Amino acid sequence: MRAHVSKKTLSEGLGMLERVIPSRSSNPLLTAIKVDAEGRGLTLSGTNLEIDLSCFVPAEISEAASFVVPAHLFAQIVRNLGGELVELELSGAELAVRASGSDFKLQTGDLSAYPELSFPGTADATLDAAELSRSLSSVRYAASNEAFQAVFRGLKVEQHASKARVVASDGFRLALREFSVIGEPRSLIVPARSADELVRVLRDGDARLSFSEGMLGVTTDRVRMNVKLLDGDFPDYERVIPKDIKLRVTLPAAALKEAVSRVAVLADKNANNRVEFLISEGTLRLAAEGDYGRAQDTLTVQQEGSEPAMSLGFNAKYVLDALGPIEGDAELLFSGSTSPAMFKGSGDAGYLAVVVPLRV
Amino acid sequence: MRAHVSKKTLSEGLGMLERVIPSRSSNPLLTAIKVDAEGRGLTLSGTNLEIDLSCFVPAEISEAASFVVPAHLFAQIVRNLGGELVELELSGAELAVRASGSDFKLQTGDLSAYPELSFPGTADATLDAAELSRSLSSVRYAASNEAFQAVFRGLKVEQHASKARVVASDGFRLALREFSVIGEPRSLIVPARSADELVRVLRDGDARLSFSEGMLGVTTDRVRMNVKLLDGDFPDYERVIPKDIKLRVTLPAAALKEAVSRVAVLADKNANNRVEFLISEGTLRLAAEGDYGRAQDTLTVQQEGSEPAMSLGFNAKYVLDALGPIEGDAELLFSGSTSPAMFKGSGDAGYLAVVVPLRV
Repeated sequence: MRAHVSKKTLSEGLGMLERVIPSRSSNPLLTAIKVDAEGRGLTLSGTNLEIDLSCFVPAEISEAASFVVPAHLFAQIVRNLGGELVELELSGAELAVRASGSDFKLQTGDLSAYPELSFPGTADATLDAAELSRSLSSVRYAASNEAFQAVFRGLKVEQHASKARVVASDGFRLALREFSVIGEPRSLIVPARSADELVRVLRDGDARLSFSEGMLGVTTDRVRMNVKLLDGDFPDYERVIPKDIKLRVTLPAAALKEAVSRVAVLADKNANNRVEFLISEGTLRLAAEGDYGRAQDTLTVQQEGSEPAMSLGFNAKYVLDALGPIEGDAELLFSGSTSPAMFKGSGDAGYLAVVVPLRV
Repeated sequence: MRAHVSKKTLSEGLGMLERVIPSRSSNPLLTAIKVDAEGRGLTLSGTNLEIDLSCFVPAEISEAASFVVPAHLFAQIVRNLGGELVELELSGAELAVRASGSDFKLQTGDLSAYPELSFPGTADATLDAAELSRSLSSVRYAASNEAFQAVFRGLKVEQHASKARVVASDGFRLALREFSVIGEPRSLIVPARSADELVRVLRDGDARLSFSEGMLGVTTDRVRMNVKLLDGDFPDYERVIPKDIKLRVTLPAAALKEAVSRVAVLADKNANNRVEFLISEGTLRLAAEGDYGRAQDTLTVQQEGSEPAMSLGFNAKYVLDALGPIEGDAELLFSGSTSPAMFKGSGDAGYLAVVVPLRV
């Protein structure tokens, strides 16, 4: 086998695989990348047993062949090469990697022992890759990294009326975003860490979804992916979304983020970074207090609703997370000082965050 | 005391102090910053017991006063404030920090317990601050962070003919740079970590040096510093600088850095990242070999000297460090395959690195 390939394109493909393939593993084969040189290019694939990823890189090939090499070493060698064109040549168990002035000989691994990765050929639903990526990334923060209950470490995807919806919660807060899909997405739970990888890999164009037992297939023009799904029942989150709104406050999201970050510096780390929200007469007053002093910030807001004033305490970090995906104006919707509060983008129906206030 | 000060200027001053003042210490007073509000501004000072640093920030002051507050908290609060102007007001043991919409109350510490910091008023020598910073930073890598011998954790400054010279070594390699000084610098050893702080703080203009028992004073227009010096005798490094050059190679430093980085990927980490240098007939061939394969890179060089060819092995990291401060063309000077080699900038007489080759 001999292949000629653009250094830039090969390097980009390897970079994507590098994020999935572990750099250490009790099974050294899992740290390898499999390369199939055939037809019009190289198919690079790898797995961390949670996600299988495959990526096609156009190349000039003579004599089809497959081989496995240490993924991170191979990627590092290609990245450091000079010039624009890379030549790969397989002779026996040795892969030669050549570019202007450089000549590397890399030992290949045992191809027959490498796990078989197969990707679905048909699509059950299609959507915009960038919108899927944006939806996953804007609710990701609300999933837990360590919750005892596995479903809290996942992102629930489901059909909701004419839209699809992705929801995450760790039991203290909730985030959801709606997005458009052609076809019916099945109800499923994607591990949050795998969602992070999807977000990194998905860019432009269409993403085609395929559903099979315990597995979600995602295909774009550049990549194919299998994501192992989480088992279990996602809690009935609809009941924590407040319906009876008594006070609505609108203000620029950026100003609120800055003010919360500011007062949080003095908030008590041992008391959930508590920041008080006091709303009355068109102002939102933020206050925090800790061992080193106290802080207060006053913001002018647009205020509506049946209650003239309200006071609530929040974990500053949860408020900042909830505001994260909101651009422009934010709407804060309150139904009582001990009831869950809602954070939305003004005029953006897709995103919604629910944060439970701290007890007095 | 009440002070009005530009947020930007105060923030910059606090940022400088933050690098020196520890964020944790068994003596909490050392994590504080001392502020003297007097006359035309605020004098901010702090210490980590190795370095005392003081920095002046112009401000409008009414009623002179001094206070100490937690340094990192104060810096973080100021950094996060909105608007351009900050108001500070001391009432009792509380410092108010105000800016548009924000009102912070910070507990001050025990001023009387804070260590007395005094800075020298007179200068024994004067030099360009940027040149001092550049000289220290270009030899810093050769000092050890953990050597048993304290002097190897320091940078030696000394007078050498009409120039001053800074030298660092860890016993395996050596770096020196010469620079101009007005006045006679005394022979002294600055701890490498304190040199790092000097490099961060020194910018433009003149640096005035003051020598006293065990202490170096450095004063610029913006800051005053005391650096505690290291005791001990720096080894006689002159004898490791090769005098009898048998082979000289000239090539672009950047190309050599890239090629060494490239082949080093396959070098054996357990064998000092050994990279072979083979010079003959106007080419420098680099080669490395490890568990995963072997690498080779060929560079065209300008070759001079009495020996027609030479072969040496180096620790790739040491070569890259030595080349670090060199821009444009690098000169590699060899006196034998087991003798120390010299690395210089072509046409830059100031910088010199010596690297001992690895044994065969």
